Amino acid sequence: MSFKNFPMVTRVVYGRGCSRQIEEIVKPVRKNGHPVIYFADHCFKGKTLEKNIPIQKNDKIIFIDTDREPTTAYVDRLRDELVGEFGEISGIIGYGGGSVLDMTKAVALMMTNKGSSADYQGWDLVKNEGVYHAGVPTLSGTGAEVSRTCVLTGPDRKLGMNSDFTPFNQVILDPKLTEDAPKDQAFYTGMDCYIHCIESLNGTYLNAFSRSYGEKALELCKKIYLEKEEWDDESYEDLMMASWHGGMSIAYSQVGVAHALSYGLSYVMGIRHGLGNCIAFNQIEEYYPEGVRDFKKIIEKFKIELPKNVCSELSEDEMKKMVGIAIRLEPLWENAFGKNWREIVTEKKVRELYEKM
Amino acid sequence: MSFKNFPMVTRVVYGRGCSRQIEEIVKPVRKNGHPVIYFADHCFKGKTLEKNIPIQKNDKIIFIDTDREPTTAYVDRLRDELVGEFGEISGIIGYGGGSVLDMTKAVALMMTNKGSSADYQGWDLVKNEGVYHAGVPTLSGTGAEVSRTCVLTGPDRKLGMNSDFTPFNQVILDPKLTEDAPKDQAFYTGMDCYIHCIESLNGTYLNAFSRSYGEKALELCKKIYLEKEEWDDESYEDLMMASWHGGMSIAYSQVGVAHALSYGLSYVMGIRHGLGNCIAFNQIEEYYPEGVRDFKKIIEKFKIELPKNVCSELSEDEMKKMVGIAIRLEPLWENAFGKNWREIVTEKKVRELYEKM
Repeated sequence: MSFKNFPMVTRVVYGRGCSRQIEEIVKPVRKNGHPVIYFADHCFKGKTLEKNIPIQKNDKIIFIDTDREPTTAYVDRLRDELVGEFGEISGIIGYGGGSVLDMTKAVALMMTNKGSSADYQGWDLVKNEGVYHAGVPTLSGTGAEVSRTCVLTGPDRKLGMNSDFTPFNQVILDPKLTEDAPKDQAFYTGMDCYIHCIESLNGTYLNAFSRSYGEKALELCKKIYLEKEEWDDESYEDLMMASWHGGMSIAYSQVGVAHALSYGLSYVMGIRHGLGNCIAFNQIEEYYPEGVRDFKKIIEKFKIELPKNVCSELSEDEMKKMVGIAIRLEPLWENAFGKNWREIVTEKKVRELYEKM
Repeated sequence: MSFKNFPMVTRVVYGRGCSRQIEEIVKPVRKNGHPVIYFADHCFKGKTLEKNIPIQKNDKIIFIDTDREPTTAYVDRLRDELVGEFGEISGIIGYGGGSVLDMTKAVALMMTNKGSSADYQGWDLVKNEGVYHAGVPTLSGTGAEVSRTCVLTGPDRKLGMNSDFTPFNQVILDPKLTEDAPKDQAFYTGMDCYIHCIESLNGTYLNAFSRSYGEKALELCKKIYLEKEEWDDESYEDLMMASWHGGMSIAYSQVGVAHALSYGLSYVMGIRHGLGNCIAFNQIEEYYPEGVRDFKKIIEKFKIELPKNVCSELSEDEMKKMVGIAIRLEPLWENAFGKNWREIVTEKKVRELYEKM
């Protein structure tokens, strides 16, 4: 089809405290006594959030290691364990930031699709509908709660399983859950939203649909990070909505230069996505002058110290690999610069940008 | 549940010319040779739009009379005719403004629910999922393309079939289709969006979810109707998105005073919804001072002559009935004025407002 037919999240509930309704929401989904599996970021082990997960009978909580970004190997292993232990499951509910939400989507899809998740990295390769999957963001900014992809690091690339089956069947937006996140992690994740809005709004793929969502998300980010004197309760609510709208903005658009470079940083050095975006975005004022200028104001206002010279210890081989990873993300560059992006984005140029970081 | 779990439109495609993809979108929905039924506003009879509807084999186009607003009797009759002629159908695709979109939703639901549609006017009374239904707006503003209701005039009230089964399975947003609408009708429908945004944003039910959508929709309306020198191609696109976001804003909110009064005007005098909203909104500056002030500027700028003294010919009985219809819309008043709305909204007060119109 020449115009993408975008699958939306099936249901969404919003409200401070609405995550207390989870069992009520999940009940109709339970099938033949098969368990509901809860994924939760490992930082919640022993915390209040764990105690509030309404496990019943044979339900199970699995803590997701988010020290590194999700890998296809990790997805496959969890799938194999679930199949081994339960055969079938009723669904997966994921509590966390982008990593846990993407793991939730990926494992739900792999419960009903054979082989390795690495086989499905790409566009529209997933064959069967996954099991029921719900997302409960505890960090705002990635847009993973609304997107049609789940980004995985595979044997030879970092790329999502983009498919019509990927979006959540249910999203539970409870701003209260985002209040306890570590401040730096919350900041980098919020900046992920800010950065992808700038990339989407300045991209060549933009249309009125994506523009309207991107503008609203960016306006909310600016209110939170630039206009307000300080962070308050409303900021959690506004950032949650910014993340939601920012994710929708990508539906007909794409991210751009910062994301392409950040994918390389993640793949080769294991730098987490939000932080990688910030490191990359900080050096590309030539492409997004206004966006980067405001970003630098935000960094200063929130007293964030970005790491410096992150690529200085890389071997020649690692640098080459990183440049290659970034350049292969063709839709991102095309969105940023149009059809003739190769005239601008050379290996030499990408390497120079990395060397400045 | 204390927080509403909102069902979203399953899929959405956006783009100038995207309605040409309809057969491609509908193909997977065709079941056992059952026909696809197209509803189209009767104004399209013999026009280009009719010729572009991709009917196959036993598919059928039914022109919807929109001279009056949809009634439960009309819904029931169409359902009976479709059952009589085809037994089963694969789905219904509706091309039109709010009336046709609401008829599409209502008939699709009544294909699988017994009795009269009047039995289902209210909240969560619909028992079974309807047949597949898709909406193709040719007028922007009502938000019917994204809402969880379909408003019908029944034997004793004007009220929607609000249910989780009501939202469209597919929405096709092609701004090109809105270019040929009669100017006055397009204006009143656009104002429906402007007015329900003002009502939602100034209501007591508002939360951050609905506020973010309502603000964006209102911003787009102001851009189109107040800030721009004149209407241009981008205005069609922006109004289509304003309608979409404005409809989403109602998810956790409600409309208010103008809509309550407009429902009475429609019910008793058959005044169409968009026009009724304008007539009512024009007289309630005391409740929405800023919104009505801007509205009056818009009316002046677009040289719109609103009808005057519309209630002057009403009998005492008719006036009483109209006041009763309006006052019974409790959630609208509660949204506007809070729990104690009855202290403000008396029969006397409502009658006074009607007499000014």
